[in-house]
Amino acid sequence: MAHLTAAELAEHLGTSKAAARIRAAACEVFAARGYGVATTREIAASLDLSPGAVYPHYKTKESLLFAIALEGHWGVLTAVTSADDPELPPADRLSAVMGAFVLWHAERTAISSVIQHELRSLEPEHLAMIVDIRRSTTAAFDAVLRAGVDDGTFGIDDVPTATLALTSLGIDVSRWFPSRRISDPHELSRRYSDIALRIAGASRP
Amino acid sequence: MAHLTAAELAEHLGTSKAAARIRAAACEVFAARGYGVATTREIAASLDLSPGAVYPHYKTKESLLFAIALEGHWGVLTAVTSADDPELPPADRLSAVMGAFVLWHAERTAISSVIQHELRSLEPEHLAMIVDIRRSTTAAFDAVLRAGVDDGTFGIDDVPTATLALTSLGIDVSRWFPSRRISDPHELSRRYSDIALRIAGASRP
Repeated sequence: MAHLTAAELAEHLGTSKAAARIRAAACEVFAARGYGVATTREIAASLDLSPGAVYPHYKTKESLLFAIALEGHWGVLTAVTSADDPELPPADRLSAVMGAFVLWHAERTAISSVIQHELRSLEPEHLAMIVDIRRSTTAAFDAVLRAGVDDGTFGIDDVPTATLALTSLGIDVSRWFPSRRISDPHELSRRYSDIALRIAGASRP
Repeated sequence: MAHLTAAELAEHLGTSKAAARIRAAACEVFAARGYGVATTREIAASLDLSPGAVYPHYKTKESLLFAIALEGHWGVLTAVTSADDPELPPADRLSAVMGAFVLWHAERTAISSVIQHELRSLEPEHLAMIVDIRRSTTAAFDAVLRAGVDDGTFGIDDVPTATLALTSLGIDVSRWFPSRRISDPHELSRRYSDIALRIAGASRP
């Protein structure tokens, strides 16, 4: 798990409903227009708030981006670790973990796109906290793959590249989903879980 | 192949070396700062040119983005179709096509990132031309996969999803490459070609 605890996350994000609404509105504005050109004024306007209403919650646009990144990456990590049951066979674990990862991104394309493509705009110490959470998500995939290699379920000799491919597939969902061909998040999640088993070199379930 | 011909592409892009230098500089600026906030003034400055020097080549920032998108997506399509030899067995074809696609993106992360993530900023008729070229690239992957399904080499019942996963993996390279773990484009290209064969359900070469 990440070094950040759930309690620390709550402390960073607060429990204010107004702040949560501002984060949600900011995600939409950042995703639609790009973080660089978006303004807190626009975000406030999208909620019918005065420009000054954002300030008590978020002093800068970057602090808003950081809160969104924290909430998003923590959400991904939680989705993945909750889906994983180490008691189950590795193929079932991989299917569940990949399915949850893909579903999270497909059901939240605005926040997914912001937290995956706007990280360059974070301040260094904020970026370091996000990288820490991302490493925990990567480690969760690594652990499932290694369990399958160890018990002979999976036929791969390069776990890091397999993890890279699996997480890359899930992250890129935020760029293209939905498409003309696939628009149901659960359907995509199932199809990508099958592809994950192929990448892991598992016999088909 | 796309409806656009190579001659029409040349007509759009011109043969001016100055324009090519401006496109290359614009890629770097767009990739580093985001298209939305970047200005043609900055792009000119990065080449030690006066702000007015861009205008004779590109009247608007959008026309510059369109030229880059045209050049980039045409480059991807050409890389893929040149790598494919329909006389070869499907597994060799898939390995070559995926390898070329991945290599193109890994060796050109600035233009790759711009042409994959800034398309929302294109005018509708420009976007339509780019979508047309992208469909041809998708069709090239589909054709190789179908050839392998037809002759029994590949074990997949859903060619579009396999093509989606393969192209998504290659496109997302522009987001993360290079990483601490993989920084050689050719090495990545080889590893992802192996993963492509797994996704296609081929027996290992």
